[in-house]
Amino acid sequence: MTEVESNLTLISATKSFDGWIKRYQHYSNTLKCNMIFAIYLPPQAETNPVPLLWWLSGLTCTDENFMQKSGAQQVAAKLGIAIICPDTSPRGVDIPGADDSYDFGSGAGFYVNATQEPWATHYQMFDYVAKELPELVFANFPLNGKESISGHSMGGHGALVLALRQPGRYASVSAFAPIVSPSTVPWGQKALSGYLGDDQQAWAEYDACALVKKGESKQPFFIDQGTADNFLTEQLRPELLEQICYQRQHPLVLRHQEGYDHSYFFIATFIDDHLRYHAQHLS
Amino acid sequence: MTEVESNLTLISATKSFDGWIKRYQHYSNTLKCNMIFAIYLPPQAETNPVPLLWWLSGLTCTDENFMQKSGAQQVAAKLGIAIICPDTSPRGVDIPGADDSYDFGSGAGFYVNATQEPWATHYQMFDYVAKELPELVFANFPLNGKESISGHSMGGHGALVLALRQPGRYASVSAFAPIVSPSTVPWGQKALSGYLGDDQQAWAEYDACALVKKGESKQPFFIDQGTADNFLTEQLRPELLEQICYQRQHPLVLRHQEGYDHSYFFIATFIDDHLRYHAQHLS
Repeated sequence: MTEVESNLTLISATKSFDGWIKRYQHYSNTLKCNMIFAIYLPPQAETNPVPLLWWLSGLTCTDENFMQKSGAQQVAAKLGIAIICPDTSPRGVDIPGADDSYDFGSGAGFYVNATQEPWATHYQMFDYVAKELPELVFANFPLNGKESISGHSMGGHGALVLALRQPGRYASVSAFAPIVSPSTVPWGQKALSGYLGDDQQAWAEYDACALVKKGESKQPFFIDQGTADNFLTEQLRPELLEQICYQRQHPLVLRHQEGYDHSYFFIATFIDDHLRYHAQHLS
Repeated sequence: MTEVESNLTLISATKSFDGWIKRYQHYSNTLKCNMIFAIYLPPQAETNPVPLLWWLSGLTCTDENFMQKSGAQQVAAKLGIAIICPDTSPRGVDIPGADDSYDFGSGAGFYVNATQEPWATHYQMFDYVAKELPELVFANFPLNGKESISGHSMGGHGALVLALRQPGRYASVSAFAPIVSPSTVPWGQKALSGYLGDDQQAWAEYDACALVKKGESKQPFFIDQGTADNFLTEQLRPELLEQICYQRQHPLVLRHQEGYDHSYFFIATFIDDHLRYHAQHLS
Protein backbone atom coordinates (compact mmCIF):
# COMPACT_ATOMS: atom_id res chain seq x y z
CA MET A 1 0.00 0.00 0.00
CA THR A 2 1.32 3.41 -0.97
CA GLU A 3 -1.21 5.50 0.91
CA VAL A 4 -0.13 7.92 3.62
CA GLU A 5 -2.54 7.82 6.52
CA SER A 6 -2.13 11.18 8.21
CA ASN A 7 -4.98 12.48 10.39
CA LEU A 8 -6.74 9.18 9.89
CA THR A 9 -7.16 6.33 12.33
CA LEU A 10 -7.67 2.99 10.66
CA ILE A 11 -10.57 1.13 12.31
CA SER A 12 -10.60 -1.99 10.14
CA ALA A 13 -9.28 -3.38 6.86
CA THR A 14 -11.20 -6.24 5.26
CA LYS A 15 -10.26 -7.96 2.06
CA SER A 16 -13.01 -8.05 -0.55
CA PHE A 17 -12.72 -9.16 -4.18
CA ASP A 18 -8.96 -8.87 -3.99
CA GLY A 19 -9.23 -5.25 -2.84
CA TRP A 20 -9.75 -3.73 0.59
CA ILE A 21 -12.64 -2.18 2.49
CA LYS A 22 -11.10 0.22 4.98
CA ARG A 23 -12.92 2.15 7.69
CA TYR A 24 -11.31 5.26 9.13
CA GLN A 25 -12.06 7.70 11.89
CA HIS A 26 -10.92 11.31 11.65
CA TYR A 27 -11.70 14.60 13.32
CA SER A 28 -13.74 16.83 11.03
CA ASN A 29 -13.06 20.54 11.35
CA THR A 30 -16.16 21.22 9.29
CA LEU A 31 -18.51 19.16 11.46
CA LYS A 32 -16.59 19.66 14.71
CA CYS A 33 -16.78 16.01 15.69
CA ASN A 34 -15.17 12.65 14.97
CA MET A 35 -16.44 11.03 11.80
CA ILE A 36 -16.10 7.58 10.28
CA PHE A 37 -16.00 6.83 6.57
CA ALA A 38 -15.40 3.67 4.55
CA ILE A 39 -13.47 3.37 1.31
CA TYR A 40 -13.22 0.42 -1.04
CA LEU A 41 -9.86 0.28 -2.78
CA PRO A 42 -9.91 -2.06 -5.77
CA PRO A 43 -6.88 -4.27 -6.48
CA GLN A 44 -5.72 -1.88 -9.21
CA ALA A 45 -5.04 0.74 -6.50
CA GLU A 46 -2.09 -1.35 -5.34
CA THR A 47 -0.16 -0.32 -8.44
CA ASN A 48 -1.81 2.77 -9.95
CA PRO A 49 -4.05 5.66 -8.87
CA VAL A 50 -7.73 4.96 -9.55
CA PRO A 51 -10.88 7.08 -10.01
CA LEU A 52 -13.30 7.57 -7.12
CA LEU A 53 -17.06 7.11 -6.85
CA TRP A 54 -18.82 8.95 -4.03
CA TRP A 55 -21.73 7.00 -2.57
CA LEU A 56 -24.15 9.01 -0.44
CA SER A 57 -26.44 6.89 1.70
CA GLY A 58 -30.02 7.39 2.77
CA LEU A 59 -31.86 8.06 6.01
CA THR A 60 -30.66 6.05 9.06
CA CYS A 61 -27.59 4.72 7.22
CA THR A 62 -23.94 4.93 8.20
CA ASP A 63 -20.78 4.27 6.19
CA GLU A 64 -21.50 0.54 6.50
CA ASN A 65 -24.81 -0.17 4.72
CA PHE A 66 -23.60 0.19 1.16
CA MET A 67 -20.39 -1.75 1.78
CA GLN A 68 -22.29 -4.64 3.38
CA LYS A 69 -25.37 -4.84 1.19
CA SER A 70 -24.81 -3.44 -2.30
CA GLY A 71 -22.42 -6.09 -3.62
CA ALA A 72 -20.70 -3.25 -5.50
CA GLN A 73 -17.17 -4.45 -4.76
CA GLN A 74 -17.31 -7.24 -7.33
CA VAL A 75 -17.70 -4.93 -10.32
CA ALA A 76 -15.69 -2.09 -8.75
CA ALA A 77 -12.80 -4.56 -8.55
CA LYS A 78 -13.21 -5.45 -12.22
CA LEU A 79 -13.47 -1.82 -13.33
CA GLY A 80 -10.80 -0.45 -11.03
CA ILE A 81 -12.96 2.13 -9.25
CA ALA A 82 -12.59 3.16 -5.61
CA ILE A 83 -15.81 3.84 -3.71
CA ILE A 84 -16.11 6.12 -0.69
CA CYS A 85 -19.06 6.02 1.72
CA PRO A 86 -19.29 8.99 4.09
CA ASP A 87 -21.58 8.85 7.11
CA THR A 88 -24.97 10.56 6.78
CA SER A 89 -24.72 13.14 9.59
CA PRO A 90 -22.46 14.42 12.36
CA ARG A 91 -22.24 11.92 15.23
CA GLY A 92 -22.04 12.15 18.99
CA VAL A 93 -22.55 15.91 19.04
CA ASP A 94 -24.99 16.07 21.92
CA ILE A 95 -27.75 18.22 20.43
CA PRO A 96 -31.08 17.80 22.28
CA GLY A 97 -33.50 15.90 20.07
CA ALA A 98 -30.87 14.81 17.52
CA ASP A 99 -31.70 11.13 18.05
CA ASP A 100 -35.48 11.50 18.36
CA SER A 101 -36.54 10.75 14.79
CA TYR A 102 -35.21 8.72 11.89
CA ASP A 103 -35.69 11.49 9.35
CA PHE A 104 -34.07 14.46 11.11
CA GLY A 105 -30.84 14.88 13.06
CA SER A 106 -28.58 11.85 13.46
CA GLY A 107 -28.48 9.77 10.30
CA ALA A 108 -30.40 12.45 8.41
CA GLY A 109 -28.01 15.30 7.63
CA PHE A 110 -29.58 15.77 4.17
CA TYR A 111 -26.22 16.99 2.79
CA VAL A 112 -26.99 20.61 3.63
CA ASN A 113 -25.12 23.36 5.47
CA ALA A 114 -27.48 24.17 8.34
CA THR A 115 -28.06 27.82 9.18
CA GLN A 116 -30.37 27.31 12.16
CA GLU A 117 -29.22 26.62 15.71
CA PRO A 118 -28.70 24.24 17.39
CA TRP A 119 -27.81 22.50 14.10
CA ALA A 120 -25.59 25.06 12.36
CA THR A 121 -22.52 24.38 14.52
CA HIS A 122 -22.20 20.77 13.40
CA TYR A 123 -24.59 20.03 10.53
CA GLN A 124 -22.46 21.22 7.60
CA MET A 125 -22.69 18.04 5.54
CA PHE A 126 -22.58 19.79 2.16
CA ASP A 127 -19.16 21.26 2.89
CA TYR A 128 -17.99 18.04 4.52
CA VAL A 129 -18.77 15.97 1.42
CA ALA A 130 -17.89 18.67 -1.14
CA LYS A 131 -14.68 19.98 0.45
CA GLU A 132 -13.16 18.56 3.62
CA LEU A 133 -13.51 14.85 2.95
CA PRO A 134 -12.32 15.07 -0.69
CA GLU A 135 -9.21 16.98 0.41
CA LEU A 136 -8.53 14.33 3.02
CA VAL A 137 -8.97 11.33 0.76
CA PHE A 138 -7.15 12.78 -2.24
CA ALA A 139 -4.20 13.51 0.04
CA ASN A 140 -4.14 10.06 1.56
CA PHE A 141 -5.22 7.42 -0.96
CA PRO A 142 -4.00 6.31 -4.39
CA LEU A 143 -6.63 8.25 -6.38
CA ASN A 144 -6.22 9.87 -9.79
CA GLY A 145 -8.44 12.89 -9.07
CA LYS A 146 -11.39 11.84 -11.22
CA GLU A 147 -14.71 11.66 -9.35
CA SER A 148 -18.25 10.54 -9.95
CA ILE A 149 -21.16 10.56 -7.53
CA SER A 150 -24.20 8.44 -6.72
CA GLY A 151 -26.53 7.80 -3.84
CA HIS A 152 -29.81 6.41 -2.57
CA SER A 153 -32.96 8.24 -1.44
CA MET A 154 -31.71 11.13 0.76
CA GLY A 155 -28.27 10.27 -0.65
CA GLY A 156 -29.64 10.40 -4.19
CA HIS A 157 -30.84 13.91 -3.37
CA GLY A 158 -27.34 14.65 -2.10
CA ALA A 159 -25.71 13.32 -5.26
CA LEU A 160 -27.96 15.36 -7.58
CA VAL A 161 -27.55 18.55 -5.54
CA LEU A 162 -23.78 18.25 -5.19
CA ALA A 163 -23.46 17.70 -8.94
CA LEU A 164 -25.85 20.51 -9.89
CA ARG A 165 -24.11 23.01 -7.61
CA GLN A 166 -20.61 22.11 -8.77
CA PRO A 167 -20.84 22.04 -12.59
CA GLY A 168 -17.98 20.17 -14.19
CA ARG A 169 -16.72 18.57 -11.02
CA TYR A 170 -18.04 15.03 -11.34
CA ALA A 171 -17.49 12.94 -14.45
CA SER A 172 -20.99 11.47 -14.01
CA VAL A 173 -23.91 11.39 -11.59
CA SER A 174 -26.47 8.72 -10.87
CA ALA A 175 -29.04 7.93 -8.20
CA PHE A 176 -31.33 5.24 -6.84
CA ALA A 177 -34.80 6.38 -5.80
CA PRO A 178 -33.66 9.94 -5.03
CA ILE A 179 -35.62 12.64 -3.23
CA VAL A 180 -35.80 15.08 -6.15
CA SER A 181 -38.03 17.82 -4.79
CA PRO A 182 -37.41 18.16 -1.04
CA SER A 183 -39.18 21.53 -0.94
CA THR A 184 -42.49 19.85 -1.74
CA VAL A 185 -42.38 16.51 0.13
CA PRO A 186 -42.67 15.73 3.87
CA TRP A 187 -39.13 14.37 4.43
CA GLY A 188 -37.61 17.36 2.70
CA GLN A 189 -39.84 19.98 4.24
CA LYS A 190 -39.05 18.70 7.73
CA ALA A 191 -35.32 18.68 7.05
CA LEU A 192 -35.05 21.96 5.15
CA SER A 193 -37.19 23.91 7.61
CA GLY A 194 -35.28 22.44 10.55
CA TYR A 195 -31.81 23.07 9.15
CA LEU A 196 -32.46 26.20 7.08
CA GLY A 197 -35.50 27.88 8.61
CA ASP A 198 -38.26 29.38 6.47
CA ASP A 199 -36.10 30.95 3.76
CA GLN A 200 -37.43 29.38 0.56
CA GLN A 201 -34.50 30.75 -1.42
CA ALA A 202 -32.15 28.78 0.83
CA TRP A 203 -34.25 25.65 0.27
CA ALA A 204 -33.95 26.04 -3.50
CA GLU A 205 -30.17 25.64 -3.25
CA TYR A 206 -30.76 22.10 -1.99
CA ASP A 207 -33.61 21.10 -4.28
CA ALA A 208 -32.69 19.19 -7.44
CA CYS A 209 -35.80 20.29 -9.31
CA ALA A 210 -35.21 23.95 -8.43
CA LEU A 211 -31.54 23.67 -9.44
CA VAL A 212 -32.42 22.09 -12.78
CA LYS A 213 -34.85 24.95 -13.33
CA LYS A 214 -32.05 27.43 -12.55
CA GLY A 215 -30.09 25.68 -15.27
CA GLU A 216 -26.45 26.22 -14.24
CA SER A 217 -25.54 22.60 -14.97
CA LYS A 218 -26.65 20.35 -17.80
CA GLN A 219 -24.89 17.26 -16.52
CA PRO A 220 -26.88 14.15 -17.44
CA PHE A 221 -28.63 12.16 -14.71
CA PHE A 222 -28.88 8.37 -14.69
CA ILE A 223 -31.60 7.30 -12.24
CA ASP A 224 -33.24 4.01 -11.28
CA GLN A 225 -36.57 4.01 -9.48
CA GLY A 226 -38.49 0.94 -8.31
CA THR A 227 -42.21 0.91 -9.12
CA ALA A 228 -43.02 -0.92 -5.84
CA ASP A 229 -41.21 1.65 -3.72
CA ASN A 230 -43.34 2.52 -0.68
CA PHE A 231 -42.11 6.11 -0.79
CA LEU A 232 -42.68 6.67 -4.48
CA THR A 233 -45.74 8.88 -4.53
CA GLU A 234 -45.36 10.81 -1.27
CA GLN A 235 -41.61 11.39 -0.81
CA LEU A 236 -39.79 10.70 -4.08
CA ARG A 237 -42.05 11.96 -6.86
CA PRO A 238 -39.69 11.33 -9.79
CA GLU A 239 -42.28 12.76 -12.19
CA LEU A 240 -41.42 16.25 -10.90
CA LEU A 241 -37.81 15.80 -11.99
CA GLU A 242 -38.94 14.30 -15.27
CA GLN A 243 -41.13 17.34 -15.96
CA ILE A 244 -38.53 19.98 -15.17
CA CYS A 245 -35.79 18.09 -17.05
CA TYR A 246 -38.09 17.93 -20.07
CA GLN A 247 -38.88 21.65 -19.83
CA ARG A 248 -35.26 22.67 -19.40
CA GLN A 249 -33.87 20.06 -21.78
CA HIS A 250 -31.75 18.65 -18.99
CA PRO A 251 -30.52 15.16 -20.03
CA LEU A 252 -32.16 12.48 -17.91
CA VAL A 253 -32.37 8.71 -18.11
CA LEU A 254 -35.00 7.60 -15.59
CA ARG A 255 -35.62 3.86 -15.52
CA HIS A 256 -38.78 2.59 -13.84
CA GLN A 257 -37.83 -0.86 -12.51
CA GLU A 258 -40.97 -2.97 -12.31
CA GLY A 259 -41.69 -4.51 -8.90
CA TYR A 260 -38.59 -3.25 -7.07
CA ASP A 261 -38.87 -1.56 -3.68
CA HIS A 262 -36.75 0.96 -1.75
CA SER A 263 -34.33 -1.57 -0.22
CA TYR A 264 -30.71 -2.45 -0.80
CA PHE A 265 -31.94 -5.50 -2.72
CA PHE A 266 -33.07 -3.02 -5.37
CA ILE A 267 -29.71 -1.25 -5.28
CA ALA A 268 -27.79 -4.54 -5.46
CA THR A 269 -29.76 -5.58 -8.54
CA PHE A 270 -28.80 -2.50 -10.53
CA ILE A 271 -25.53 -1.26 -9.00
CA ASP A 272 -23.52 -2.98 -11.75
CA ASP A 273 -25.24 -0.83 -14.38
CA HIS A 274 -24.41 2.31 -12.40
CA LEU A 275 -20.78 1.37 -11.91
CA ARG A 276 -20.35 0.61 -15.60
CA TYR A 277 -22.00 3.93 -16.46
CA HIS A 278 -19.60 5.79 -14.17
CA ALA A 279 -16.63 3.81 -15.47
CA GLN A 280 -17.37 4.98 -19.00
CA HIS A 281 -17.21 8.59 -17.87
CA LEU A 282 -14.25 8.16 -15.53
CA SER A 283 -11.94 6.51 -18.05
CA MET B 1 -46.42 -17.77 -8.96
CA THR B 2 -47.51 -21.41 -8.84
CA GLU B 3 -46.58 -22.06 -5.23
CA VAL B 4 -49.14 -23.13 -2.69
CA GLU B 5 -48.55 -21.45 0.62
CA SER B 6 -50.21 -23.72 3.15
CA ASN B 7 -49.06 -23.57 6.78
CA LEU B 8 -46.88 -20.63 5.84
CA THR B 9 -47.35 -16.97 6.62
CA LEU B 10 -45.64 -14.68 4.16
CA ILE B 11 -43.75 -11.94 6.02
CA SER B 12 -42.25 -10.13 3.05
CA ALA B 13 -41.54 -10.50 -0.66
CA THR B 14 -38.74 -8.43 -2.13
CA LYS B 15 -37.71 -8.43 -5.75
CA SER B 16 -34.04 -9.14 -6.34
CA PHE B 17 -32.32 -9.76 -9.68
CA ASP B 18 -35.67 -10.45 -11.31
CA GLY B 19 -36.46 -13.14 -8.72
CA TRP B 20 -37.94 -12.89 -5.23
CA ILE B 21 -36.63 -13.07 -1.68
CA LYS B 22 -39.51 -14.28 0.44
CA ARG B 23 -39.57 -14.57 4.22
CA TYR B 24 -42.08 -16.91 5.85
CA GLN B 25 -43.12 -17.77 9.36
CA HIS B 26 -44.44 -21.24 10.21
CA TYR B 27 -45.04 -23.32 13.29
CA SER B 28 -42.43 -26.06 13.58
CA ASN B 29 -43.65 -29.31 15.10
CA THR B 30 -40.05 -30.43 15.43
CA LEU B 31 -38.87 -27.35 17.32
CA LYS B 32 -42.22 -26.61 18.99
CA CYS B 33 -42.07 -22.91 18.21
CA ASN B 34 -42.64 -20.44 15.39
CA MET B 35 -39.76 -20.22 12.96
CA ILE B 36 -38.84 -17.86 10.13
CA PHE B 37 -36.97 -18.83 7.01
CA ALA B 38 -36.05 -17.00 3.81
CA ILE B 39 -36.03 -18.40 0.30
CA TYR B 40 -34.69 -16.86 -2.87
CA LEU B 41 -36.67 -17.92 -5.92
CA PRO B 42 -34.83 -17.16 -9.15
CA PRO B 43 -36.78 -15.88 -12.17
CA GLN B 44 -36.69 -19.38 -13.73
CA ALA B 45 -38.97 -20.60 -10.91
CA GLU B 46 -41.83 -18.61 -12.44
CA THR B 47 -42.04 -21.13 -15.27
CA ASN B 48 -40.26 -24.33 -14.19
CA PRO B 49 -39.26 -26.13 -10.99
CA VAL B 50 -35.68 -25.33 -9.97
CA PRO B 51 -33.05 -27.02 -7.79
CA LEU B 52 -32.48 -25.87 -4.20
CA LEU B 53 -29.34 -24.87 -2.32
CA TRP B 54 -29.49 -25.04 1.47
CA TRP B 55 -27.49 -22.30 3.16
CA LEU B 56 -26.76 -22.83 6.85
CA SER B 57 -25.59 -19.73 8.66
CA GLY B 58 -23.13 -19.27 11.48
CA LEU B 59 -23.30 -18.20 15.12
CA THR B 60 -25.58 -15.21 15.89
CA CYS B 61 -27.11 -15.23 12.40
CA THR B 62 -30.75 -15.44 11.37
CA ASP B 63 -32.35 -16.13 8.00
CA GLU B 64 -31.43 -12.59 6.95
CA ASN B 65 -27.61 -12.34 6.99
CA PHE B 66 -26.91 -14.38 3.88
CA MET B 67 -29.70 -12.77 1.87
CA GLN B 68 -28.52 -9.26 2.75
CA LYS B 69 -24.76 -9.65 2.58
CA SER B 70 -23.67 -12.51 0.32
CA GLY B 71 -24.69 -11.05 -3.03
CA ALA B 72 -25.60 -14.61 -4.04
CA GLN B 73 -28.83 -13.66 -5.79
CA GLN B 74 -27.06 -12.30 -8.86
CA VAL B 75 -25.52 -15.63 -9.87
CA ALA B 76 -28.38 -17.72 -8.48
CA ALA B 77 -30.64 -15.79 -10.88
CA LYS B 78 -28.32 -16.57 -13.78
CA LEU B 79 -28.01 -20.25 -12.87
CA GLY B 80 -31.62 -20.79 -11.89
CA ILE B 81 -31.00 -22.02 -8.35
CA ALA B 82 -33.28 -21.38 -5.39
CA ILE B 83 -31.57 -20.74 -2.04
CA ILE B 84 -33.12 -21.38 1.35
CA CYS B 85 -31.81 -19.88 4.58
CA PRO B 86 -33.19 -21.45 7.76
CA ASP B 87 -32.73 -19.70 11.10
CA THR B 88 -29.89 -20.96 13.31
CA SER B 89 -31.86 -22.05 16.40
CA PRO B 90 -35.33 -22.23 17.88
CA ARG B 91 -36.64 -18.76 18.81
CA GLY B 92 -38.72 -17.35 21.63
CA VAL B 93 -38.81 -20.61 23.57
CA ASP B 94 -38.17 -19.18 27.02
CA ILE B 95 -35.34 -21.41 28.24
CA PRO B 96 -33.39 -19.81 31.10
CA GLY B 97 -29.94 -18.80 29.84
CA ALA B 98 -30.80 -19.25 26.14
CA ASP B 99 -29.85 -15.65 25.35
CA ASP B 100 -26.83 -15.38 27.63
CA SER B 101 -24.03 -16.15 25.19
CA TYR B 102 -23.46 -15.78 21.46
CA ASP B 103 -22.13 -19.31 21.03
CA PHE B 104 -24.79 -21.39 22.82
CA GLY B 105 -28.58 -21.30 22.84
CA SER B 106 -30.32 -18.69 20.66
CA GLY B 107 -28.55 -18.25 17.35
CA ALA B 108 -26.31 -21.23 18.09
CA GLY B 109 -28.30 -24.42 17.57
CA PHE B 110 -25.31 -26.14 15.98
CA TYR B 111 -27.63 -28.25 13.80
CA VAL B 112 -27.86 -31.03 16.42
CA ASN B 113 -30.74 -32.89 18.04
CA ALA B 114 -30.26 -32.05 21.73
CA THR B 115 -30.67 -34.86 24.24
CA GLN B 116 -30.13 -32.80 27.40
CA GLU B 117 -32.79 -30.77 29.15
CA PRO B 118 -33.79 -27.99 29.10
CA TRP B 119 -32.66 -27.98 25.45
CA ALA B 120 -34.03 -31.31 24.15
CA THR B 121 -37.64 -30.15 23.91
CA HIS B 122 -36.89 -27.46 21.32
CA TYR B 123 -33.30 -27.76 20.07
CA GLN B 124 -33.81 -30.37 17.34
CA MET B 125 -32.18 -28.43 14.54
CA PHE B 126 -30.79 -31.47 12.72
CA ASP B 127 -34.26 -32.90 12.21
CA TYR B 128 -35.67 -29.48 11.40
CA VAL B 129 -33.19 -28.90 8.58
CA ALA B 130 -33.00 -32.53 7.42
CA LYS B 131 -36.70 -33.41 7.57
CA GLU B 132 -39.40 -30.94 8.55
CA LEU B 133 -38.30 -27.89 6.60
CA PRO B 134 -37.52 -29.83 3.38
CA GLU B 135 -40.96 -31.43 3.48
CA LEU B 136 -42.53 -28.03 3.91
CA VAL B 137 -40.63 -26.30 1.13
CA PHE B 138 -40.86 -29.15 -1.38
CA ALA B 139 -44.62 -29.16 -0.85
CA ASN B 140 -44.99 -25.42 -1.27
CA PHE B 141 -42.47 -24.06 -3.76
CA PRO B 142 -41.64 -24.75 -7.42
CA LEU B 143 -38.64 -27.00 -6.70
CA ASN B 144 -37.49 -29.99 -8.72
CA GLY B 145 -36.33 -32.08 -5.76
CA LYS B 146 -32.58 -31.72 -6.32
CA GLU B 147 -30.68 -30.32 -3.36
CA SER B 148 -27.18 -29.14 -2.52
CA ILE B 149 -25.93 -27.73 0.76
CA SER B 150 -23.48 -25.11 1.96
CA GLY B 151 -22.84 -22.98 4.99
CA HIS B 152 -20.51 -20.77 6.97
CA SER B 153 -18.63 -21.49 10.21
CA MET B 154 -21.18 -23.25 12.49
CA GLY B 155 -23.28 -23.57 9.33
CA GLY B 156 -20.34 -25.06 7.44
CA HIS B 157 -20.19 -27.66 10.21
CA GLY B 158 -23.90 -28.22 9.71
CA ALA B 159 -23.54 -28.63 5.95
CA LEU B 160 -20.72 -31.16 6.25
CA VAL B 161 -22.50 -33.16 8.96
CA LEU B 162 -25.87 -33.21 7.20
CA ALA B 163 -24.18 -34.42 4.01
CA LEU B 164 -22.01 -37.04 5.74
CA ARG B 165 -24.96 -38.49 7.65
CA GLN B 166 -27.28 -38.61 4.62
CA PRO B 167 -25.14 -40.20 1.89
CA GLY B 168 -26.53 -39.61 -1.57
CA ARG B 169 -29.00 -36.95 -0.56
CA TYR B 170 -27.26 -33.77 -1.67
CA ALA B 171 -25.89 -33.36 -5.19
CA SER B 172 -22.95 -31.42 -3.74
CA VAL B 173 -21.65 -29.91 -0.52
CA SER B 174 -19.48 -26.89 0.14
CA ALA B 175 -18.53 -24.69 3.06
CA PHE B 176 -16.91 -21.41 4.05
CA ALA B 177 -14.61 -21.54 7.08
CA PRO B 178 -16.44 -24.50 8.64
CA ILE B 179 -16.01 -25.87 12.15
CA VAL B 180 -14.71 -29.30 11.14
CA SER B 181 -13.84 -30.85 14.48
CA PRO B 182 -16.30 -29.58 17.10
CA SER B 183 -15.26 -32.32 19.54
CA THR B 184 -11.81 -30.76 19.89
CA VAL B 185 -12.41 -26.98 19.75
CA PRO B 186 -13.96 -24.62 22.34
CA TRP B 187 -17.07 -23.59 20.37
CA GLY B 188 -17.89 -27.21 19.62
CA GLN B 189 -17.11 -28.58 23.06
CA LYS B 190 -19.37 -26.01 24.69
CA ALA B 191 -22.22 -26.77 22.30
CA LEU B 192 -21.92 -30.56 22.18
CA SER B 193 -21.57 -30.94 25.95
CA GLY B 194 -24.50 -28.57 26.53
CA TYR B 195 -26.83 -30.17 24.02
CA LEU B 196 -25.64 -33.81 24.18
CA GLY B 197 -24.02 -34.24 27.58
CA ASP B 198 -20.76 -36.15 28.04
CA ASP B 199 -21.45 -39.02 25.64
CA GLN B 200 -18.51 -38.84 23.22
CA GLN B 201 -20.18 -41.30 20.87
CA ALA B 202 -23.08 -38.87 20.50
CA TRP B 203 -20.60 -36.07 19.79
CA ALA B 204 -19.01 -38.13 17.00
CA GLU B 205 -22.32 -38.12 15.11
CA TYR B 206 -22.00 -34.34 14.77
CA ASP B 207 -18.28 -34.11 14.07
CA ALA B 208 -17.23 -33.92 10.41
CA CYS B 209 -13.76 -35.32 11.09
CA ALA B 210 -15.19 -38.28 13.06
CA LEU B 211 -17.77 -38.93 10.34
CA VAL B 212 -15.15 -38.88 7.59
CA LYS B 213 -13.15 -41.36 9.68
CA LYS B 214 -16.23 -43.55 9.94
CA GLY B 215 -16.34 -43.49 6.15
CA GLU B 216 -20.03 -43.95 5.33
CA SER B 217 -19.98 -41.17 2.74
CA LYS B 218 -17.33 -40.27 0.21
CA GLN B 219 -19.09 -37.16 -1.09
CA PRO B 220 -16.52 -34.57 -2.15
CA PHE B 221 -16.14 -31.36 -0.10
CA PHE B 222 -15.46 -27.96 -1.65
CA ILE B 223 -14.24 -25.59 1.06
CA ASP B 224 -12.89 -22.04 1.18
CA GLN B 225 -10.95 -20.83 4.20
CA GLY B 226 -9.48 -17.35 4.67
CA THR B 227 -5.92 -17.19 5.95
CA ALA B 228 -6.62 -14.02 7.98
CA ASP B 229 -9.59 -15.62 9.77
CA ASN B 230 -9.40 -14.79 13.50
CA PHE B 231 -10.86 -18.18 14.38
CA LEU B 232 -8.58 -20.23 12.16
CA THR B 233 -6.23 -21.84 14.64
CA GLU B 234 -8.44 -22.15 17.71
CA GLN B 235 -11.95 -22.94 16.42
CA LEU B 236 -11.78 -23.99 12.77
CA ARG B 237 -8.58 -26.05 12.39
CA PRO B 238 -9.07 -27.09 8.75
CA GLU B 239 -5.83 -29.07 8.90
CA LEU B 240 -7.66 -31.71 10.96
CA LEU B 241 -10.14 -32.26 8.14
CA GLU B 242 -7.32 -32.22 5.61
CA GLN B 243 -5.50 -34.96 7.53
CA ILE B 244 -8.44 -37.28 7.98
CA CYS B 245 -9.60 -36.79 4.38
CA TYR B 246 -6.10 -37.67 3.21
CA GLN B 247 -6.01 -40.78 5.42
CA ARG B 248 -9.44 -41.96 4.36
CA GLN B 249 -9.12 -40.87 0.73
CA HIS B 250 -12.16 -38.62 1.13
CA PRO B 251 -12.25 -36.14 -1.79
CA LEU B 252 -11.55 -32.62 -0.57
CA VAL B 253 -10.79 -29.33 -2.28
CA LEU B 254 -9.68 -26.90 0.43
CA ARG B 255 -8.70 -23.47 -0.84
CA HIS B 256 -6.69 -21.19 1.44
CA GLN B 257 -7.73 -17.67 0.44
CA GLU B 258 -4.88 -15.32 1.24
CA GLY B 259 -5.77 -12.36 3.44
CA TYR B 260 -9.50 -13.05 3.81
CA ASP B 261 -11.19 -13.01 7.20
CA HIS B 262 -14.29 -14.69 8.69
CA SER B 263 -16.81 -12.08 7.49
CA TYR B 264 -19.49 -12.01 4.84
CA PHE B 265 -17.09 -9.95 2.70
CA PHE B 266 -15.10 -13.20 2.39
CA ILE B 267 -18.25 -15.16 1.54
CA ALA B 268 -19.38 -12.55 -1.01
CA THR B 269 -16.02 -12.74 -2.76
CA PHE B 270 -16.24 -16.49 -3.36
CA ILE B 271 -19.95 -17.32 -3.33
CA ASP B 272 -20.06 -17.26 -7.14
CA ASP B 273 -17.55 -20.10 -7.29
CA HIS B 274 -19.65 -22.13 -4.87
CA LEU B 275 -22.89 -21.53 -6.74
CA ARG B 276 -21.29 -22.53 -10.03
CA TYR B 277 -19.88 -25.66 -8.36
CA HIS B 278 -23.32 -26.61 -7.06
CA ALA B 279 -24.97 -25.79 -10.40
CA GLN B 280 -22.68 -28.31 -12.13
CA HIS B 281 -23.87 -31.03 -9.77
CA LEU B 282 -27.51 -29.99 -9.71
CA SER B 283 -28.01 -29.93 -13.48
